[in-house]
Formats: sequence, C-alpha cells, structure tokens
Amino acid sequence: MLKYRNHLSEMPSYDGVERDYRIKVNANECNLNLPPLVEERVMSRLSRIAFNRYPNEQYDDLRDQIARNFNVDMDQILLGSGSSEIIEKVFYAFGGSARRRIVYPSPSFSMYKIYAKAAEAQAIEFALDENYDLDVDRFISTVRESKAQLAVVCNPNNPTGNVLAVDRIEEIVRSIDCAVLLDEAYVEFYGRSAAGLVKKYPNLLVARTFSKAYGLAGARVGYMIAHRDVTRMIEKTFMPYHLNVLSLATADIVYQMRDEFVPRIQMMVAERKRMSERLSGLSGVKVYPSATNFLLMKYDRAAALNARLEELDIGVRCFKNNARLENCLRISMGTREENDAWFAAIEKFVKEATA
Amino acid sequence: MLKYRNHLSEMPSYDGVERDYRIKVNANECNLNLPPLVEERVMSRLSRIAFNRYPNEQYDDLRDQIARNFNVDMDQILLGSGSSEIIEKVFYAFGGSARRRIVYPSPSFSMYKIYAKAAEAQAIEFALDENYDLDVDRFISTVRESKAQLAVVCNPNNPTGNVLAVDRIEEIVRSIDCAVLLDEAYVEFYGRSAAGLVKKYPNLLVARTFSKAYGLAGARVGYMIAHRDVTRMIEKTFMPYHLNVLSLATADIVYQMRDEFVPRIQMMVAERKRMSERLSGLSGVKVYPSATNFLLMKYDRAAALNARLEELDIGVRCFKNNARLENCLRISMGTREENDAWFAAIEKFVKEATA
Repeated sequence: MLKYRNHLSEMPSYDGVERDYRIKVNANECNLNLPPLVEERVMSRLSRIAFNRYPNEQYDDLRDQIARNFNVDMDQILLGSGSSEIIEKVFYAFGGSARRRIVYPSPSFSMYKIYAKAAEAQAIEFALDENYDLDVDRFISTVRESKAQLAVVCNPNNPTGNVLAVDRIEEIVRSIDCAVLLDEAYVEFYGRSAAGLVKKYPNLLVARTFSKAYGLAGARVGYMIAHRDVTRMIEKTFMPYHLNVLSLATADIVYQMRDEFVPRIQMMVAERKRMSERLSGLSGVKVYPSATNFLLMKYDRAAALNARLEELDIGVRCFKNNARLENCLRISMGTREENDAWFAAIEKFVKEATA
Repeated sequence: MLKYRNHLSEMPSYDGVERDYRIKVNANECNLNLPPLVEERVMSRLSRIAFNRYPNEQYDDLRDQIARNFNVDMDQILLGSGSSEIIEKVFYAFGGSARRRIVYPSPSFSMYKIYAKAAEAQAIEFALDENYDLDVDRFISTVRESKAQLAVVCNPNNPTGNVLAVDRIEEIVRSIDCAVLLDEAYVEFYGRSAAGLVKKYPNLLVARTFSKAYGLAGARVGYMIAHRDVTRMIEKTFMPYHLNVLSLATADIVYQMRDEFVPRIQMMVAERKRMSERLSGLSGVKVYPSATNFLLMKYDRAAALNARLEELDIGVRCFKNNARLENCLRISMGTREENDAWFAAIEKFVKEATA
C-alpha cells in the first residue's frame, strides 16, 4: 500500500463534468468562437511560434499590456492557467495545516472548498443570506473572529449572479487585516471592477480570467492584480513555465483586440435581460438578479426539468451536492437562437407541469 | 502584514532563467522547430479549435494514443503541464508535513528540492558517487531506512547525462515498498525506457515529457504512466482543466506523427557523440558519459569560460548553487552548425588558457 498524503483519498473532485451538448449552456462559456478578425490574428501569431522553446518573453508581453490597462506596474501582475490556478495558488500561499483558516462565501464557486482542502486550510463557509446576498458586516466580523489568513469574495458571485457594490468591497478590504481574494471572473458583464483598489490596499488580490467575456476557456489564461509584495510571494508557488506559449500568444492578441469583444459582451448582457424577463414570466419559476453571462433559476421540479433538458441534448448546470442550491438550475447565455431554444423547452415543460 | 504559509518566504526559486541567446544551448530544448509536415498538421488542427470551450475530449484523445503505444489502459495515463506538473503533483501527493520523506538523487533535476519543499516533505538528498552514478544498493537501503514515502530516480539523469540500466531500476522498484517516481524526460535519446515495468509494479510511476525529444517545450505537455490505483489518486491533485486545448491538440498531432522525430533524435545522438569526442580532446576538459541531448563537462576555469560564452551571446547552463557541480557546464546539443560554433569558442578559450 502506497502512503499518500493525509486525507488525499477523501479529497473531493470538481462536480462539473464536461460533455458535448447540442445546446451547451452549462459552463458559463462564451458560445461563440473568437471574432473572425481576432482569430485571423491569433492564427497568424501561432504560425510564428517557436514550439521548441520554453516560454520566455511571452509572459512579459502579456503582463505589460495588462499592467498598462490597469495603470499598475508590471510586477503587480501574475499570470495563471485560468484564474483557477491563481485561486489554487493563493489558497496554497495562505493555507497550511498550522490552523490556517480561509473564509469564503457559500453558495459560491464550488472549487473554493476543494482548493481549501488541497491547501490543508480550515475552510470557513460564510453563508450568503436567503437572496444569496453577502452581509458585509457579518462577513467582516466572521473573518475577524475566526482570525482567518484569507477571505474570499466572488463578485459577481457564481453561481448566483448577484453583486456587491465596489464601495462595499472596499469596506471589507479596509476593515480586515488579512488577505482578501476578490474573484472577478464575471466582472466584464457587470462593468464595475474593484481592481483599482489594489493601489490603495496591499491586502487585496484580484483574480481575473480570459475564459468568460473573452471566450478563451480552452486556452486557460487568467491573471492576478495585487501589490508587488504579494505577487512576489504568490509567484514562489508557481512552477517554472506553468503557462504555455500558445495560450500566452493567443491571450496577448485577444487582449490587444479586446474592443472587438465589447459588442458580444453587450449582446450577452442584453440576452441575460431578455431571458430573465421571459423566465420570470413562467409560473413557479424564480429568477435571481444577475450581473453575469448566466442566470440562476429556482423551480420546484428542477430535477425533472433538468432530466427533460438532458433528453433534448440541452446542457444546463444542476447543483446536486449543495443544499443551498436545491431546485436551482444555472443557465449560461448562448446565442439568441440557443437561448430561444432552451427557453422553449423550459416553457413547454413548465406549462405541461401546471396544466 | 499578511500571514503567508509557514516557510513560504524561504521557498527557493528555480535557478534556470530564460533569455535569448544567439546560440541557446542552456535548457536542453530541441533547437529545431517542428518538422514542416508536423507543423502544417498542427496549424490545420489549431485552426479548427473551439477556443471558447473548456477542454473536454482532447484529454482522452491524447491519453488514448499514449496508452495504446505503451499497451496499457487509458486510465493508467495522466497528462500534465509538462512533466513538471506531474512531478509537482506526485511530490504533493506523497508529501505533507506529517514527517513525510522524499528521497531523490543529487546532483539531479534542481526542481526536486523545490517541489519537496512545496509539498512540505522532508527532502533526503541521496548523493550520487564521484562519477555521478547511483549506487543501487545504497539507494535501496537509504529509502528503506528513512521510511520514505517516495523515491525518485531520474534516468537518464539530468544534468549529468548518465544512466542506470533497466534491470537496476527494476531492482530498486522491486526492493522498496514506497512509490518510485522514474523521471524519463530524456529517455528517447537513450532508447531504453523502464515504462513497461508499470505492468508488473504498482509502486512505479513513470514521468515523460514532450519538451525534449519532441521539441514541444513551449506547449508544456507531459504525462505519467502508472497503475490505475495510482493515477486515480494523483488525479485528485490536479485542477479541473489544467491543460489547455491548444497544447493538447498540438501534442496529439505530434504523437501521431512521432516517427517524423526519429531522424532528428538520431541526429542529436550523433551530435552528442561527435561533440563528446571533440570536447574530450581539449586539455583539462572532462566530459561525462551521456545518453541524453546534452553533455556535462568539467573544467577548472568553467566560470571564466561561461563568462566568455556569454560575451559571445552563447548560452550554456552553469550551476552556481551546487557544490557537487562545481566547475561544470551543461551544453545542449543544437544543430551541427551551432555545435561547431560553441565548440570553436570553447576550444579557443581553452587553448588561450593553456598557451
């Protein structure tokens, strides 16, 4: 018998499972591939890649661009393999088995629990209220009283879609001494980032991703913005060459051409509004406010509805292992046609159920 | 003051620093980009990538291909972001602060020390003998007596280039109970892999990479072959979507077309022999036997020689922080022209020094 790390065998696995669907609205991906102009430039860049060389200046090209956009120094930017790697390593850096505590909201991104476990930290799940809102005062006192080393806020929150205003985030960051990781994976759909606060608060770490608004889920690129003392420490936890040149080059072009993504971000926001209104009109369906590219709905017969959608080869996200998300389904905004299609299926199911 | 994980501030960083050189023979990369036929197929595949979707079936395509080549089941293959990620996660999986010990050879791949530290394991450096050979009996007794959870063998060994025969590796794996990680990053240049032993020994984990013989250092793809009970446990330590679709698609084509790489592997082996002979003819230069794509040489004035090479914009690897590699330089085999160029520079330096 091999002797694995303590508790490794009990480590939970991510509950999202990818498979193909005719209509795939289960992973908050962008349902459009790159804009043609961007793709052309990406392919042209990829055709000049030195596959045989370890990544080198490609890191700095992208970091430099991001830093200029946020008006910070390049050493305040760290790149990761998706914001996932940023989150994993930040949890590791503030974790440890020596009574280290990490406070994060619940329900929120399901990986927080797993990364806390991997970091051997004590996870303190902070319960969002019945509307999934975060009670800032109670959050601050929970972090303080638990003497946590790291507090996490996901804004807009996944999978609930709701937001905290930037001034409430500032209140959190100002009121607690420990590190605050702000996960802004969906912030482009909301439009109000708190990243500017890193200049004022050296305990704020902001994680961002290319996977959602910039439609690069397949390339796995994310980044962190923080004080240089923080990036210097977190950087120690990354493997050398943890990012590959193809993804770096792709993200570099995408970031250069990010204006090309504005119309589709606007389209997804418009679709979210349209679909929120349509879903809200269905009997027995509750739709939560969302500032993201997805909607969370609650419906008594969610499991049966999900089964019907599966039969129709429509993939939405169902949360089987979280009591706080009982009867909830999360639906990403696809194209207008895709949205009309999943809505028609849901509408038919609901009408039959109430008939 | 933020409260980082214990000892994070003392965590050493990788001592390899990438920069461009006119002649870059410092990182054991392949100095040729992909064979044109392969590159054409890769670009064609990349032009059909769904950048916007999380990786999915691309993992299995590549795992399936590798499994068939090794005549094992697909669930015996794990992919990593380079073999680096495999090594990092295996160290993590067998590490931990609860008096966990990892035995690895020294001098060897400098990251073992860092991964052991990151895993909070106790590192036991096993000293190779004066010729950098591994004394198998002494290694076995060291592992047994230390009650280690993991033993590491790098074969061929980096940065020394020498090998253990497969039957000696089998003796190690058979004689100890704990997990044995066999790092075969350079094995294609040697030609005799011990990967077949995984069928017989459930404690053997073999790490391989696309970075060296297959010239994909920039894409960051490696893999592990082991018993399915082992892969199942190690898999728990990986983030979801830890590999990106561009690298997976590239590696998939490269592996399909791996016969195209045979001539250049043979060329590098031939160059290694040629350069070993030439270097050995220089006064005061000792060249170690190598079964890799690099040579380790020892020379009294290695630091001055390295400085001269730097002036000429020729990058070789110098080991400043390892007393066991004092006065050693490691030189990767480049193209014939590149090899002639760095050799001419070394020859000139040595002749001037002895004049």
